[in-house]
Amino acid sequence: MDASTSHPATVHLEDLALGMSRSRAKEITERDIELFGEVSTDRNPVHFDEAYARGTVFKGRIAHGMMSAALISAVLGEELPGPGTIYLGQSLRFRAPVRIGDTLTAIVTVTGIDLEKGRVTLDTTCKVGDTEVVRGEATVMPPRRGS
Amino acid sequence: MDASTSHPATVHLEDLALGMSRSRAKEITERDIELFGEVSTDRNPVHFDEAYARGTVFKGRIAHGMMSAALISAVLGEELPGPGTIYLGQSLRFRAPVRIGDTLTAIVTVTGIDLEKGRVTLDTTCKVGDTEVVRGEATVMPPRRGS
Repeated sequence: MDASTSHPATVHLEDLALGMSRSRAKEITERDIELFGEVSTDRNPVHFDEAYARGTVFKGRIAHGMMSAALISAVLGEELPGPGTIYLGQSLRFRAPVRIGDTLTAIVTVTGIDLEKGRVTLDTTCKVGDTEVVRGEATVMPPRRGS
Repeated sequence: MDASTSHPATVHLEDLALGMSRSRAKEITERDIELFGEVSTDRNPVHFDEAYARGTVFKGRIAHGMMSAALISAVLGEELPGPGTIYLGQSLRFRAPVRIGDTLTAIVTVTGIDLEKGRVTLDTTCKVGDTEVVRGEATVMPPRRGS
């Protein structure tokens, strides 16, 4: 089943298959940095102060790392498996910075299905162009059919 | 060294010690849910639709799981180790829901220091009252003294 071009609601546990994938892209804006700063309380100057950030290893302002995680969780919660999914765990490796104006793409791909326990693992990758900026694994409990 | 009541800037690699800890508390508001929905693009009804959410295992609306991760990252980035820290990785287990009106507390505690590689691990826990809602581990690269 290749449903990567459609936009269904929930994919139930019994309908998931290894390799099934969904993605979502979003441009990171100045407003995103402001809003994430407010929600997280994280006003670290590497996100807000260009003069400071130029003096760091990043050579300029970067987005909050958890913004990538937030986009991953959006794909899990809205697309694959979608609404009704219970989020159990997530690992994240931050591999490269994301900057204002970058288009961030989160891709989730089913890598494991345990029908008995009702648990599913997914590879979770965020990219900016061809650069992998975040890589990790999600563990979720999708709803069963008719649940 | 118990510095949990002070509010210093960066704690450099050489000044970190096992067991050193910092925390930050934040009340989760309706506005936080709205802002996080915008930044993440995650408009899942379990966060926004009380009637829908009552029919789920959560019996009511819950905050986005990554809001807890965002508060953890704020403590790492602003308090321990603080500004200049490079975030390498994070693991998260979502153990209990967070609701609007809850006071969420993120606590980070140094659990490992590799002076040679410049890498530090921290236990990262989020609580609501006495309930552990998120548990995981962060890996960071704190700035060295004079860097």
